[in-house]
Amino acid sequence: MTGAAQFKVMTPPPADGSTRARAGRLTLTHGVVETPQFMPVGTNATVKALDPDDLRTVGASIILANTYHLYLRPGHERIARLGGLHRFMAWDRPILTDSGGFQVFSMEGLRDLDDDGVTFRSHLDGSLRRLTPESSMAIQAALGSDVAMVLDECPPLPAVWDKIEAAVSRTTLWAERCRTAYRGPGVPFAIVQGGTDRSLRERSARELVALDFPGYAIGGVSVGEPPESIAEVARFTAALLPAGRPRYLMGVGRPEDLVEAVASGVDLFDCVMPTRNARNGTLFTSEGRINIKREEYRADPRPLDPACGCEACLRYSRAYLRHLFVANEILGARLNTIHNLTFYLGLMSAMREAIGRGAFAAFRESFLAPR
Amino acid sequence: MTGAAQFKVMTPPPADGSTRARAGRLTLTHGVVETPQFMPVGTNATVKALDPDDLRTVGASIILANTYHLYLRPGHERIARLGGLHRFMAWDRPILTDSGGFQVFSMEGLRDLDDDGVTFRSHLDGSLRRLTPESSMAIQAALGSDVAMVLDECPPLPAVWDKIEAAVSRTTLWAERCRTAYRGPGVPFAIVQGGTDRSLRERSARELVALDFPGYAIGGVSVGEPPESIAEVARFTAALLPAGRPRYLMGVGRPEDLVEAVASGVDLFDCVMPTRNARNGTLFTSEGRINIKREEYRADPRPLDPACGCEACLRYSRAYLRHLFVANEILGARLNTIHNLTFYLGLMSAMREAIGRGAFAAFRESFLAPR
Repeated sequence: MTGAAQFKVMTPPPADGSTRARAGRLTLTHGVVETPQFMPVGTNATVKALDPDDLRTVGASIILANTYHLYLRPGHERIARLGGLHRFMAWDRPILTDSGGFQVFSMEGLRDLDDDGVTFRSHLDGSLRRLTPESSMAIQAALGSDVAMVLDECPPLPAVWDKIEAAVSRTTLWAERCRTAYRGPGVPFAIVQGGTDRSLRERSARELVALDFPGYAIGGVSVGEPPESIAEVARFTAALLPAGRPRYLMGVGRPEDLVEAVASGVDLFDCVMPTRNARNGTLFTSEGRINIKREEYRADPRPLDPACGCEACLRYSRAYLRHLFVANEILGARLNTIHNLTFYLGLMSAMREAIGRGAFAAFRESFLAPR
Repeated sequence: MTGAAQFKVMTPPPADGSTRARAGRLTLTHGVVETPQFMPVGTNATVKALDPDDLRTVGASIILANTYHLYLRPGHERIARLGGLHRFMAWDRPILTDSGGFQVFSMEGLRDLDDDGVTFRSHLDGSLRRLTPESSMAIQAALGSDVAMVLDECPPLPAVWDKIEAAVSRTTLWAERCRTAYRGPGVPFAIVQGGTDRSLRERSARELVALDFPGYAIGGVSVGEPPESIAEVARFTAALLPAGRPRYLMGVGRPEDLVEAVASGVDLFDCVMPTRNARNGTLFTSEGRINIKREEYRADPRPLDPACGCEACLRYSRAYLRHLFVANEILGARLNTIHNLTFYLGLMSAMREAIGRGAFAAFRESFLAPR
């Protein structure tokens, strides 16, 4: 571990136990991240449809990039020779990279797993590739990410207990190897596994906390289990993690999931939902979700969300956004993405503000109330 | 004709006859257009991949929108109810619309032409539609364009003399009807036809000039004739048009075509080339064309064009632009489009500047010299 990270809890959870939400400040190599925070997903060294100016405008302070994709194309060594991922994509704020393992474990029939690592075929050209704890950390160090995630074993759910137990053991082993191997400009975060089994989650957290990582993620959620399990697993796993370290719930989720997880003491999130939904025409507004391709918007002169100040809402009508979507125009993907990320990052900002003035329990109640 | 347009030649062609290039200022309802000028094509009420801020950044002062496409989807009446095309797409500078005829005449087997108008099937839903001189002008008036092009008959080349002659006659008839019918916020421009036949071009120009239009276009070029004909037709047709009115060469073309046509006294251009090529990865640079998808750029740290100051060139490497193209990322289409339009609009600006200081003949010679 060669990089620096400092996490400071600015507003701890209230003593009355009404919520475990806290506000913090995570200082990374490329800048400061106020938590709770959402990380837009930039799979291929670009948050789809946006440029770095757009990202700053929507309020992004940290983004996630996918090691699996960048390792295969254009290659981490090429990116390193071009000055690292930040320079490659012209983004000067923090970047968190995943380990690459999640994509590999999502490829049914494409992998060969052993205690040393995982062998898989590239989805691009079918070439045989291998990822080990050491190579994953080397790739992430070459990319130059601020936060490098350890390689973990993340079995899709439902899975038998033995399989989840084996994944927990291997995840601890690999986390230790990752921690030893990492020589990057950032810091490594460990990932708690254990499926929906409380005792396995406890064991995984205990073993990883003993390794003293700069941050901890809750992995293995939103991988096939029922939606109600997500909040429950996040809640009891977050409580197992040290108060002085950032907690990151991977791959979650809907706005209501974020609010529930913040209430459980989670600090960081990533999810493709706002960006992918944007490209599919599903837009988050202060009055609920809108599917912009619907006939009812074809002559609608109103802004998408009158309560939103993004470019899409300030300048255009729902009729224009629908027209762009129906005509398959690139500008539609960009405006919709700007809007959805403005909504997500605005929600995070509203939660931080509510926590800061001791009003998060009320915020949560109001946000989750049926409309 | 209810709108206002004023064209002033600021720098007339030099008396020595070395070039017929001139610089002018065209004042339209929504603003001033310095000529010679290039109009980016915004077919579906968006210049593909760009927003209005991007258009201003690349230096666009007027864009073209396609009546055929907007008439079919979302419909001119809907756009009118939403406040007109400028408001619909949030572009407050001038817009020129074509008549819709060019797309209809390009659809082989889809049309039924008579002296009153043309019947065709929508490429979107197969519905039967009809365009007449009056309806084309009504559509363009509803859109609120600054310049409305008359409905003309534009036969694809090669065509027999009789067919081109008939198109010239009908184009004059229709131009008169368009001029009488137009009740818009802008001004109508006539379109000279006549194929590559000089006497037909002369007749077409003479008949249309007698109708005293605020501007004249050279139509029926780049429709199947050999490339060397484009410059020749533009040259002798431009000379037939009144010096005090703007001359617009429709659908042309390559950078070298623009330079040649400016030398012939043309003031306005439109073409999909910079925007379409951008999306296909063909980029114009000060050192010639680059196909960004080529293997040779995969590790190239240099900017696309060191002589260019656009966002794509200032911030990114050729390797990154290639990566975006190969990964089919939306940002690639936008950056490439920003670059190509910066190149085109920069070329127009350089020509205006050269004309202003009496150096256009030298500019042309230098630009067209083999490298």
